[in-house]
Amino acid sequence: MSKSRKKRAKKAGLPPGTLVYTGEKDREPIKITVMDYDEKHFVEHEIKHVEECSDYKDKPTVTWINIDGTHRADIIESIGKIFGVHPLVLEDLMSVEQRPKMENYDKYVFIVLRMLTHNNQTDEIKDEQLSLIIGSNFVISLQESGKDGDVFDPIRIRIRDGKGYIRKMKADYLAYVLIDLVVDNYFSIVERLQEKTEQIEELIIKDPTSHNLHEINLLKRNLIYVRKAFWPLREAISVLERGETELFSPNTLLHLRDVHDHIIQLIDTIDSLRDVISDMMNIYLSSISNKLNEVMKVLTIISTIFIPLTFIAGIYGMNFKYMPELEWQLSYPILWLIMIIIGVSMVIYFKSKKWF
Amino acid sequence: MSKSRKKRAKKAGLPPGTLVYTGEKDREPIKITVMDYDEKHFVEHEIKHVEECSDYKDKPTVTWINIDGTHRADIIESIGKIFGVHPLVLEDLMSVEQRPKMENYDKYVFIVLRMLTHNNQTDEIKDEQLSLIIGSNFVISLQESGKDGDVFDPIRIRIRDGKGYIRKMKADYLAYVLIDLVVDNYFSIVERLQEKTEQIEELIIKDPTSHNLHEINLLKRNLIYVRKAFWPLREAISVLERGETELFSPNTLLHLRDVHDHIIQLIDTIDSLRDVISDMMNIYLSSISNKLNEVMKVLTIISTIFIPLTFIAGIYGMNFKYMPELEWQLSYPILWLIMIIIGVSMVIYFKSKKWF
Amino acid sequence: MSKSRKKRAKKAGLPPGTLVYTGEKDREPIKITVMDYDEKHFVEHEIKHVEECSDYKDKPTVTWINIDGTHRADIIESIGKIFGVHPLVLEDLMSVEQRPKMENYDKYVFIVLRMLTHNNQTDEIKDEQLSLIIGSNFVISLQESGKDGDVFDPIRIRIRDGKGYIRKMKADYLAYVLIDLVVDNYFSIVERLQEKTEQIEELIIKDPTSHNLHEINLLKRNLIYVRKAFWPLREAISVLERGETELFSPNTLLHLRDVHDHIIQLIDTIDSLRDVISDMMNIYLSSISNKLNEVMKVLTIISTIFIPLTFIAGIYGMNFKYMPELEWQLSYPILWLIMIIIGVSMVIYFKSKKWF
Amino acid sequence: MSKSRKKRAKKAGLPPGTLVYTGEKDREPIKITVMDYDEKHFVEHEIKHVEECSDYKDKPTVTWINIDGTHRADIIESIGKIFGVHPLVLEDLMSVEQRPKMENYDKYVFIVLRMLTHNNQTDEIKDEQLSLIIGSNFVISLQESGKDGDVFDPIRIRIRDGKGYIRKMKADYLAYVLIDLVVDNYFSIVERLQEKTEQIEELIIKDPTSHNLHEINLLKRNLIYVRKAFWPLREAISVLERGETELFSPNTLLHLRDVHDHIIQLIDTIDSLRDVISDMMNIYLSSISNKLNEVMKVLTIISTIFIPLTFIAGIYGMNFKYMPELEWQLSYPILWLIMIIIGVSMVIYFKSKKWF
Amino acid sequence: MSKSRKKRAKKAGLPPGTLVYTGEKDREPIKITVMDYDEKHFVEHEIKHVEECSDYKDKPTVTWINIDGTHRADIIESIGKIFGVHPLVLEDLMSVEQRPKMENYDKYVFIVLRMLTHNNQTDEIKDEQLSLIIGSNFVISLQESGKDGDVFDPIRIRIRDGKGYIRKMKADYLAYVLIDLVVDNYFSIVERLQEKTEQIEELIIKDPTSHNLHEINLLKRNLIYVRKAFWPLREAISVLERGETELFSPNTLLHLRDVHDHIIQLIDTIDSLRDVISDMMNIYLSSISNKLNEVMKVLTIISTIFIPLTFIAGIYGMNFKYMPELEWQLSYPILWLIMIIIGVSMVIYFKSKKWF
Repeated sequence: MSKSRKKRAKKAGLPPGTLVYTGEKDREPIKITVMDYDEKHFVEHEIKHVEECSDYKDKPTVTWINIDGTHRADIIESIGKIFGVHPLVLEDLMSVEQRPKMENYDKYVFIVLRMLTHNNQTDEIKDEQLSLIIGSNFVISLQESGKDGDVFDPIRIRIRDGKGYIRKMKADYLAYVLIDLVVDNYFSIVERLQEKTEQIEELIIKDPTSHNLHEINLLKRNLIYVRKAFWPLREAISVLERGETELFSPNTLLHLRDVHDHIIQLIDTIDSLRDVISDMMNIYLSSISNKLNEVMKVLTIISTIFIPLTFIAGIYGMNFKYMPELEWQLSYPILWLIMIIIGVSMVIYFKSKKWF
Repeated sequence: MSKSRKKRAKKAGLPPGTLVYTGEKDREPIKITVMDYDEKHFVEHEIKHVEECSDYKDKPTVTWINIDGTHRADIIESIGKIFGVHPLVLEDLMSVEQRPKMENYDKYVFIVLRMLTHNNQTDEIKDEQLSLIIGSNFVISLQESGKDGDVFDPIRIRIRDGKGYIRKMKADYLAYVLIDLVVDNYFSIVERLQEKTEQIEELIIKDPTSHNLHEINLLKRNLIYVRKAFWPLREAISVLERGETELFSPNTLLHLRDVHDHIIQLIDTIDSLRDVISDMMNIYLSSISNKLNEVMKVLTIISTIFIPLTFIAGIYGMNFKYMPELEWQLSYPILWLIMIIIGVSMVIYFKSKKWF
Repeated sequence: MSKSRKKRAKKAGLPPGTLVYTGEKDREPIKITVMDYDEKHFVEHEIKHVEECSDYKDKPTVTWINIDGTHRADIIESIGKIFGVHPLVLEDLMSVEQRPKMENYDKYVFIVLRMLTHNNQTDEIKDEQLSLIIGSNFVISLQESGKDGDVFDPIRIRIRDGKGYIRKMKADYLAYVLIDLVVDNYFSIVERLQEKTEQIEELIIKDPTSHNLHEINLLKRNLIYVRKAFWPLREAISVLERGETELFSPNTLLHLRDVHDHIIQLIDTIDSLRDVISDMMNIYLSSISNKLNEVMKVLTIISTIFIPLTFIAGIYGMNFKYMPELEWQLSYPILWLIMIIIGVSMVIYFKSKKWF
Repeated sequence: MSKSRKKRAKKAGLPPGTLVYTGEKDREPIKITVMDYDEKHFVEHEIKHVEECSDYKDKPTVTWINIDGTHRADIIESIGKIFGVHPLVLEDLMSVEQRPKMENYDKYVFIVLRMLTHNNQTDEIKDEQLSLIIGSNFVISLQESGKDGDVFDPIRIRIRDGKGYIRKMKADYLAYVLIDLVVDNYFSIVERLQEKTEQIEELIIKDPTSHNLHEINLLKRNLIYVRKAFWPLREAISVLERGETELFSPNTLLHLRDVHDHIIQLIDTIDSLRDVISDMMNIYLSSISNKLNEVMKVLTIISTIFIPLTFIAGIYGMNFKYMPELEWQLSYPILWLIMIIIGVSMVIYFKSKKWF
Repeated sequence: MSKSRKKRAKKAGLPPGTLVYTGEKDREPIKITVMDYDEKHFVEHEIKHVEECSDYKDKPTVTWINIDGTHRADIIESIGKIFGVHPLVLEDLMSVEQRPKMENYDKYVFIVLRMLTHNNQTDEIKDEQLSLIIGSNFVISLQESGKDGDVFDPIRIRIRDGKGYIRKMKADYLAYVLIDLVVDNYFSIVERLQEKTEQIEELIIKDPTSHNLHEINLLKRNLIYVRKAFWPLREAISVLERGETELFSPNTLLHLRDVHDHIIQLIDTIDSLRDVISDMMNIYLSSISNKLNEVMKVLTIISTIFIPLTFIAGIYGMNFKYMPELEWQLSYPILWLIMIIIGVSMVIYFKSKKWF
């Protein structure tokens, strides 16, 4: 996140529309796959030269071009030329830190989504940009990295097998299916955060440690981060849903309303989690403080009982010549008695006041 | 709640419209009851095969089909076919973690509500999804679980006996009566939370313990949970009320406005309760802290009085050969006097400063 | 407040429009007074049977029917029949825990207000429901309790004496005058809360006690309570003001705008008071904490000074055979000197560090 | 502020439009000055009898009537009669605790502003009501008090000298100039608060005392107070600006947009100051707490070092007959060594842990 | 910031449109550079007398007049006369503390931006006003100070070299390029704040000191400051974007939408940073408090262990004649044993309770 943004500042002063890749370096080579289908036909292959895409441009069938990796300006530029994409869109394709958004360019719609993946080893959430360019008969999907490209495999299988409606529908439905998949993946991220929240909560109630504070903070940060990826998407899909573009059929819009509902549900859940976490923070703090206070109280009570007793012992440790008690035979056992009475009555008094 | 959501994530990658039940497993068998009535006629019976419903589809009388349990995809699908319900609605019927919503599909209106029930034994609030499909002459109500199906008994009795307006009215009025009942049940939930709040408040003022903190937290969580079930309902009913669908007569809309008012009143009450609880949290914390401070102060004062006295005793416990006081005959009683004066004047001083 | 709400839940399952009184029991008998006037004529009397009201229904003069007590369903029902009032309005008349609202039923306007009265003995704020049904030539005002019915006496006197505009105006103006009186009474409630706030503030600055915390909390609760009675009224009057009903003349609407301004001013004042109170809470807490800290600091300093001195005394209380200092003649006075020097220099050091 | 409001409550029950002065008593006599001008002519004089104003009512020249003091109902009533002002406006003129507002009465516009003046001696902010009645050829300005009437002197001089545009413009421009002056005066109030904020901040960072808490609180209160005077003005001017009245020319509206910008800038500044102050509060509290904690820590460390040493001394103060160490010749110096080692190593240990 | 505002108050009472410079004094002389270009021609030179600008007024080519320094009223007035600029705009040009805004004056558009520069030495953020007056064939840019005038050099080079689209476009595109550059510079400011945040966060987790509190506060202040410069810009560009003026072509508006997106992204980042910082504050406070509590606990435990032991030693330091233990031969070693047992078992007990 911080790395890509740092590069963002270097763009200052360059002419608008200059294609500068702002993501991490050391990328794998770009991989372009094409799926072309209608109800009866279906073709799928990987292409070497981006120029081959132009074959599909005017075909009436639905063409799905998936590009894994957006770091090569020449490829992006070729795509732009073939499909008549606006230079600002091309610039956004390579600036991989965009917020989710929807832009309507009459002939095509440009959508930016954030794909979230949870790394099980480091317990970190990674987000990648997924850009969609949706025309009347094509969908171009561009992913930041090629590694997680298999996220779309369930859809590929559905297209290959011709199961469900997908082969009978147009490009807008394919776009919906891709968006729906991304949003469905959000559920697993949010559920993970939910589990984590429940785990930490149990720990805090049982035995709060300062390590929990760090974990709560991390969780909070993740929630903010995830919410930032969802929130603008709601608006973006809401714009689509309002039917501002004719590229989407009423049926697909109905489906998008469903996606919209899912996003609102996710945001609801995240907001509840944030409430829960901020309460947890308070509980943690008051638990820690209660625990310490209990300790301090008990310790102080011990001191308080012994200090007056020590004083009495000190009295009879004095070396005055004329101290009558010192001579008496029963002084010592009586003193013990007095001290035990004082000690016990202090304990009883403190107990009666519920001081411990 | 968490269980159902976890299953939600597993749906990722499935084609939209796939019917997957997301609720708890081990459900009882589904039970379908049909009530068919107009002002003069009335038929009620339980049906075995969902296909029997088709008999009622085009009858001019009002038909109320109540289905307890939504976990069987085949039954849901049959219902969908008979009444021409959109696949996305069917999907929502089985995904029992929907937020309350209202969707207008011209020929019918689809409403999702959350039914809240309070478990007296565990003191927990359970919520279940109630889905309503309202057509011009039928209402289909689907409840998540069959166990609490008797919640609608007062309405059934009213229909059977022909009391009130209900038999004279259309399906939209039946739908209103169902919604009204659900909202009326919210009142008892909210009143329960209110009583609980008052109980805890009394406890906190009398004698705050760390257990209260836990209870406050639980109450807070319940309020958030309950509010989440109400809040979107307000919007949903408000959409209905605005008369966006012709299925609802002006008279029924007037009644819905009344329901809308009730929901706002409930939300108001919950928001007040939340204010009260967050104040309670503060009072609890400052009570706890005050209590501890009082203890610490008293204990510290005791130590503070005896430490200088112990020092004096220590002085005359020294073994110097030439300590003139040790030889004097009145040293010992004079010392006692001095120590008592010091002790008493410290107590007076602390009292005058209102330190205890 | 809580009592009436509890009864609310019992209504669940009853047919809508069922008249159930939700207020306190043990009400005095209902009292109905009628004033009928125009610029020249004026009649006033108390009626025994509610049916007598029907005489005034179609008279061109302005009729003001004031009903003290809404707990008898038969009377409410008669009123409803005579003036053609919707059953839902009748239900609201008896459910005395309504939020302020305005409902437009073409032939009449239904307004719910909350009347606030301050009990000087218990220092509690009581609120009662005042419902107004305003037709073209009549105003029906229903108060929850008959005891405080004399709140409208200034208006009665104005009507009797024919002073001011009131006798020259229509029913809408009478309605405005009633609303204006209720809002004017709010000022005295708010001013009372303001005085109370200033009193507590002075106390807290002078000498904060844990009792103040309780008072602040009570005040806060009262502010929330009062605000809840004002806030929706603003919206209700704003709806009237927008001229959605033809029952109100432009001149009366101008007057209502004035009432609207007053409510906004009251809300402003209450919001300022809430800010002040939440600041007060902080000041209280930090005062209490400062006070305790000062005490603890002084006490700790005393201990800290004497502990090293006691140690020194302890040293020379040891019984070693070979301790050369014990034999020296000046040991004792020198030790006193050393101990005084240590004590004084510690005091000086602490003072220089501004520790007390 | 509180004084005037208390009187407000006494108005309850009086007929609307009754003129009751709600400000402070013991006012100076009312002073009325008239300026009548156009590009070429200019007349200025003080008038004794308010009826003289009627001479200017239908003159095509611009007439500015400035009234210092609004406590005499007869004068206000005369003004109302001469210029055809609505009774509710007259009532508002005398109720000097109005929020800023703008009311459009076709023939004239009624504007209420709050004039803020800073009292350098008491460091208090006083606010007074300035009411403007703006007709096509006249502006009536009413100030609560006559003492600060000279606030408009710069405008009077500009009119007298015929400098700037003012003599060439209509009454609407004069109204704008008056509003602009009031808003310009706000800048000096806000700058004063800003300086005060910076002063207190410096004090708090250098040496926080409990007095600062009081000052922060006062500052906060002043900011709330000042903001309350600005905030509604923004809305009021924004209504004017939207051109809802024809009394204001497009050119004057352009100037009002400028005033509107100034108010937004002021609100921005105040909101920043509030942020700064609430941060200051936090810094103050944590500084105070840090300071105390440092003290407590050092004191506790001193005790902790000496308590074990005192114990050791206590051991050898015991009077057992058979304690071999007591007889040894080197016991005493060795014990000193041991005690020094223990003390020093504790200090080193605490230092290494950075405990002080 | 504070300096300029203070001068603002001095303007009170001056006629509107009076040109008063509100920025810092001791400015360098004003420098005016003109670039005049179309696709084929290009002229650039510095002019001495502002009147020379009039040559370019009606030329069809694009003219960019850049003025470094706005402190001379005569120059501003000349510019105003030549290009027909409204006096209020001229006033705003010299009042260099304007919020970002966009004002549409049919023939030209007036835009105010804040340019932020980070001073690496003092770590302070300086902001300057950049005003743009955009006509159909000219852009006048006015910067507060001449020192940082080179900020526009990349654009100058692009114009000189004829690279990119800029020479082919109209004045509106030049305006966009200038705005884009200013916004691009914001990225580096925000990234700097982000780095700073990360640095402080690391420090706080490793070893929180009271110095960090100061740094957090400074950072927070900077974020508020920077946000204040962005926030209104969003609205201003959004107004432009909505196409309220015909001076901007659809293509340029598309580019402005891009700038708008960048601003929203920046605001998003700043808001996240504010969340992070407010969390950091909490973590800092609870770290500090935890650290202290740990210290206090350990110290108190040490005292608590030794106080009872000292009491026992005190007992056998008493000088009673008849204390049988004193005579026994094994008393001393047994006592040591007892004391060691007591000490060790206390340590074990405290450990088992996890008190340290």
